[in-house]
Amino acid sequence: MKFSVTVTLKKDVLDPQGKVVQNTLINMGMDYLKNIRQGKHFEIEVDEENQLEAEKKIDEMCKKLLVNLIIENYKITKI
Amino acid sequence: MKFSVTVTLKKDVLDPQGKVVQNTLINMGMDYLKNIRQGKHFEIEVDEENQLEAEKKIDEMCKKLLVNLIIENYKITKI
Repeated sequence: MKFSVTVTLKKDVLDPQGKVVQNTLINMGMDYLKNIRQGKHFEIEVDEENQLEAEKKIDEMCKKLLVNLIIENYKITKI
Repeated sequence: MKFSVTVTLKKDVLDPQGKVVQNTLINMGMDYLKNIRQGKHFEIEVDEENQLEAEKKIDEMCKKLLVNLIIENYKITKI
């Protein structure tokens, strides 16, 4: 079973990398850009046929390693 | 108008960072993990009310800066 996990910075956390990308795009003439924030994305495949169980396992991976819960949010979706 | 862009490595491109995460998770006892690949995620807001036009603008940003088309795929979705 395959899942996608999207990790984003929380609203009030600064995103210097995103800021650099934003400034670069604006300097390239794309002044219609209002905001850009960068995050991480994982595609995870687990050996588990029960969706609920699989999601629990993915959630455990996020909490234990993939996500810094203090500054990041995450969303798990089946793909 | 707000969009999410997911950038993933193409199928045959090696993902050393993902491999490290995979080995770490397996060493932590999560041996049900079959595969994990890491990518990038952007949340982009543009000043454009027409969805088709907005998507074109996002697509331009991807092609010109955000995505390395040789080794990466990308997907744009409205949020």
